[in-house]
Order: sequence, then C-alpha cells, then structure tokens
Amino acid sequence: MNSEIASQLKWNDDGLIPAIVQDAESGRVLMLAWMNADALDRTLNSGEAVFWSRSRQQLWHKGETSGHIQKVKEVQLDCDGDGLLLKVEQMGGIACHTGRESCFFRTAENGEWAENASQIKSPKEIYGDV
Amino acid sequence: MNSEIASQLKWNDDGLIPAIVQDAESGRVLMLAWMNADALDRTLNSGEAVFWSRSRQQLWHKGETSGHIQKVKEVQLDCDGDGLLLKVEQMGGIACHTGRESCFFRTAENGEWAENASQIKSPKEIYGDV
Repeated sequence: MNSEIASQLKWNDDGLIPAIVQDAESGRVLMLAWMNADALDRTLNSGEAVFWSRSRQQLWHKGETSGHIQKVKEVQLDCDGDGLLLKVEQMGGIACHTGRESCFFRTAENGEWAENASQIKSPKEIYGDV
Repeated sequence: MNSEIASQLKWNDDGLIPAIVQDAESGRVLMLAWMNADALDRTLNSGEAVFWSRSRQQLWHKGETSGHIQKVKEVQLDCDGDGLLLKVEQMGGIACHTGRESCFFRTAENGEWAENASQIKSPKEIYGDV
C-alpha cells in the first residue's frame, strides 16, 4: 500500500479496520464490513469493494458469487484513523445476503427489533441452491 | 436491557459493538463509535447517544462537554447482529472533536488523504482552553 495512505491508518489487534458502506446516491447505509491492508489495497486499486471475511478468514470480493458488486466512488477516513467510509454504487441494488437493499433492516421499536425493509430477492434466487 | 433487544446482539471479545452514526436528515455519516450493553441501554432509554470510550475506558455521553448532543431518532441492527446504525439529529451541526460536521473529513485521492471539509468551529471554541 502507498505509504501516505497507510501512515494514517490504525488497525486493530487483528490487523483490521471497520468499513462502513454507504450508497453514494441515496445515502442509505448498506453494511458494515472489515478490511485488512490487502483488502484496502485491492479496493483502492480495482475500484471494487474487497473486504476481509472474519467468518471465513479470507479476502472477500463482495459480489463475486451474487453479482452484487460494489463500485467504489470514494474512500474516506475518520479523524482517529480507525474507521473507513466507502461510498459505492451497489450493483443489483442488493447489499445484504438476505436479499435486502441494506443489512440494517431491523429497527428497535417498543423493545423489539422490527423489520423495516422486505426482501428484493430471496437468497435462493441470488445464490441458487446452496 | 430488554431481553428481546439483547438476544439479537453479538458483542465482540471486549463486550462492544460498533455503532455508525448518521444524520437522520442529510444522510451524512457523522462518526463511528462503540457501545457496550450499558451504553446501548442508556441510549435507548434516554434518546441521546451514549457510547463507550475505548481511550478513556468509560461511558461517554456524546456532547456532554461540547453541547453537541445527538438526539437519537432510530437505532437499527444489521443482519449479523454485530453492527448498529443510529440515525440522529446532531445538535450544533458538529459531530467531530476537530470542529467538523463529520469525522470522515479525509478522502483518498491520488495516494493521499485529502481534506474534504473544513472546520465549522475550532476545538478551542468548542472546548475552551484545555
């Protein structure tokens, strides 16, 4: 990674930084993911969002399977250097693996999590029989 | 905390969850902070954002010193239960301790972090001589 870019970043003990993903046009927050240095490097170089999958412990080119790639318009860094914000164009209009536009589809209401958005596609339609 | 709310949350090894803060009206992402169970409880009960300060290791009622309180309009949870999104009304229009609207005031441009927003107030104006 470019040393100027790297010098301002603070990685956590696992070498990761959280990355907020926001739809560049609508402003909708789509998801929160994590990046290591390699993922950020690939994102900056390719213009498509690449994360570190903590569950699979491997690089994750978002949309590789589903086609729901995120074209990265801007990468922003916060004041403390420990949070990133990606402004993206979301291919297919679906960021969440549940088939919704955004992963933030539950809202606290009267002591419960109420769904605030319905599925655009079912996971089966997106991923096939897996 | 209400058990229905708590049951869907996944805290990290430090008992924390990241919380994205977004201006409810403009859609601008203001900051990324962290909450423990007590902070989330107080936020839900009071309607004002309370975080866990990792640097000070104590509860942090955002705006307590500066007056830049965040009135919480909505609390959303992501699909994996390990990320929160707060939609807020930002008192004073300043979320960042540097005196800017948003903590995300640097954008990656040509291998450097370029400032994308200027200060609304100086930290001295906000906090006095500290």
